[in-house]
Amino acid sequence: MTMAKRDTYTPESLLAVAVGVFNERGYDGTSMEHLSKAAGISKSSIYHHVKGKEELLRLAISRALDELFAVLDEPGATGGPAVDRLQYVTRRTVEVLMAELPYVTLLLRVRGNTGTERWAMERRREFDHRVAELLKQAAADGDLRADVDARLATRLLFGMINSVVEWYRPDRGGAVTSEEVADAVVRTAFDGLRTAR
Amino acid sequence: MTMAKRDTYTPESLLAVAVGVFNERGYDGTSMEHLSKAAGISKSSIYHHVKGKEELLRLAISRALDELFAVLDEPGATGGPAVDRLQYVTRRTVEVLMAELPYVTLLLRVRGNTGTERWAMERRREFDHRVAELLKQAAADGDLRADVDARLATRLLFGMINSVVEWYRPDRGGAVTSEEVADAVVRTAFDGLRTAR
Repeated sequence: MTMAKRDTYTPESLLAVAVGVFNERGYDGTSMEHLSKAAGISKSSIYHHVKGKEELLRLAISRALDELFAVLDEPGATGGPAVDRLQYVTRRTVEVLMAELPYVTLLLRVRGNTGTERWAMERRREFDHRVAELLKQAAADGDLRADVDARLATRLLFGMINSVVEWYRPDRGGAVTSEEVADAVVRTAFDGLRTAR
Repeated sequence: MTMAKRDTYTPESLLAVAVGVFNERGYDGTSMEHLSKAAGISKSSIYHHVKGKEELLRLAISRALDELFAVLDEPGATGGPAVDRLQYVTRRTVEVLMAELPYVTLLLRVRGNTGTERWAMERRREFDHRVAELLKQAAADGDLRADVDARLATRLLFGMINSVVEWYRPDRGGAVTSEEVADAVVRTAFDGLRTAR
């Protein structure tokens, strides 16, 4: 049995521990017991901070969603031609993903058994939909190629962006910067890997 | 208690059932009991076909890997400029992924607790490495842009390709064809979404 340490957690630091456990074990596979062990405090101490694991999930997912939706209200996302706004949102989404890696990873992995999970999926679809609208507008303006369906293009764009959570580890030495990755995603998605001919 | 049905499985049809369960519950979360229930035959009937769940995993992963590696030996992947070979391999990888969807999905989700899982990850890395070599050659030939690092480009290319398993469902009405998706991936990855200027 592990001795419980003194509870010096803030809501933020407890959340960081919980998100780590959720990402490692999956939300479904995480019990209050697992959270208590990982945090090194008793279950009742955790209940002092939150109502239960679903509230921790909601807080974590909210953090990711708030940051992502905030991008859509930034000046670069609201003014100018749709293609430029789409490019700006792509870049900033990659940056948010890397800055809030565990929180966005959790958001992307949520599958939907509880109300909070279904809400998270709904909000994520809403974000994707907002980006898809930008993409459609850019295509209508003639700034995106007409021979790739807008829906498919949105999926491939998010496929590329979201795949960053699979390999990016900020603690690894010689890691690429968030700016390098964002540049690479924007260049690849908008102008392609091939040398201009 | 479910009545066991008569065991009329072939190795292939039993494998298809097992892969479905692995993808739904995760390999770790699947017991022989789960497989027995899903197949509707007794555990001892399953043991008549295979040694256990790890053998089913190995057979399923082998099927995905064999199809993927076979692409690298096709004429389109072995002759001509590296950039054309890379484009060919990209297209064919998408096609294999869609044709062998549950098997490739399982391969992509494997995380590595057993020997078979570690072998699968090793073989997958080998495939990625072969494609990365093609990409490096194409970049050295001056056919790919120099301002995206080859390693990062490989990751983004696979990010886009592999994301197809997240949304492609062949049984959905009005589903896009494998050719349309492969075209969209090749166009986006090589020439970008933006209209040529």
